[in-house]
Amino acid sequence: MLDKPSEAETELRQGEVAVALPPQTDAGLYFIGTIRTPWRTRQECPKRGSPDGPICSIVVDERWRMALTDLAGHPRVQVLYWMDRARRDLVLQTPFSSMQTTGTFALRSPVRPNPIASSIIQLIAIEGTTLQVRGLDCLDGTPLIDLKPERVVASDYRT
Amino acid sequence: MLDKPSEAETELRQGEVAVALPPQTDAGLYFIGTIRTPWRTRQECPKRGSPDGPICSIVVDERWRMALTDLAGHPRVQVLYWMDRARRDLVLQTPFSSMQTTGTFALRSPVRPNPIASSIIQLIAIEGTTLQVRGLDCLDGTPLIDLKPERVVASDYRT
Repeated sequence: MLDKPSEAETELRQGEVAVALPPQTDAGLYFIGTIRTPWRTRQECPKRGSPDGPICSIVVDERWRMALTDLAGHPRVQVLYWMDRARRDLVLQTPFSSMQTTGTFALRSPVRPNPIASSIIQLIAIEGTTLQVRGLDCLDGTPLIDLKPERVVASDYRT
Repeated sequence: MLDKPSEAETELRQGEVAVALPPQTDAGLYFIGTIRTPWRTRQECPKRGSPDGPICSIVVDERWRMALTDLAGHPRVQVLYWMDRARRDLVLQTPFSSMQTTGTFALRSPVRPNPIASSIIQLIAIEGTTLQVRGLDCLDGTPLIDLKPERVVASDYRT
């Protein structure tokens, strides 16, 4: 199971600013499965997923089994997951990697008002409700919130 | 303000299957702003956002103003938003456009357990807490849940 952030992880670095969070949330998420990776601590996680990385698993809850129909025809899949150990109240952050203070929305840091990560993975196989994939970089046990085919990008959109 | 789905929109099409939703949600989202577009009904919305489409606005709540620091340096931004009018219990769907029944996770339909959309937009300008952007395709008034720089894709990842 996931442990909670240690005290050291919740201290502010130089330049960081926290705000008061809203008194209540506005919508609710269902966790629809669990991501299985070799990484048990944030320090172990790769900086970003790689197609050369290890095969990881995405285990979808039985309730959603039929929703996987035809997904195997999509070699690249967008995965949304919930970074449930990240604090949500920082508006300015000073990443350890750069030590440059910048706005939360100018970073892909897990620390953000809604700690949703988006990754594109390579789908290798689906067996029952378990996907074998490459390209993830998250902690073992991370809650899954969505799977969808990668959006095909029109060539004129990328230039 | 957003109206609720009409009765016709909540009827099942041929081949569609609904499941019982979990008794409770597992995490809460904050709406952090509002998306302003010219489109007031689903029928008016373009099928997908285009870089040639109209300029739309993303109005971020005052609480998160400082989180926009340095975002203007990113010409392409990933926007996550909440499709708050979509039902969440379909595992098989029959899109009107194709009339082919398929699994929810093999579609980018708004109808899914967690109705989160992900779009890449072109950032034109930021004035205060309002972003001027191109490339959206959602309804006027859609709740914003995240902004982050587009992930730079390694060239070997896309081939």
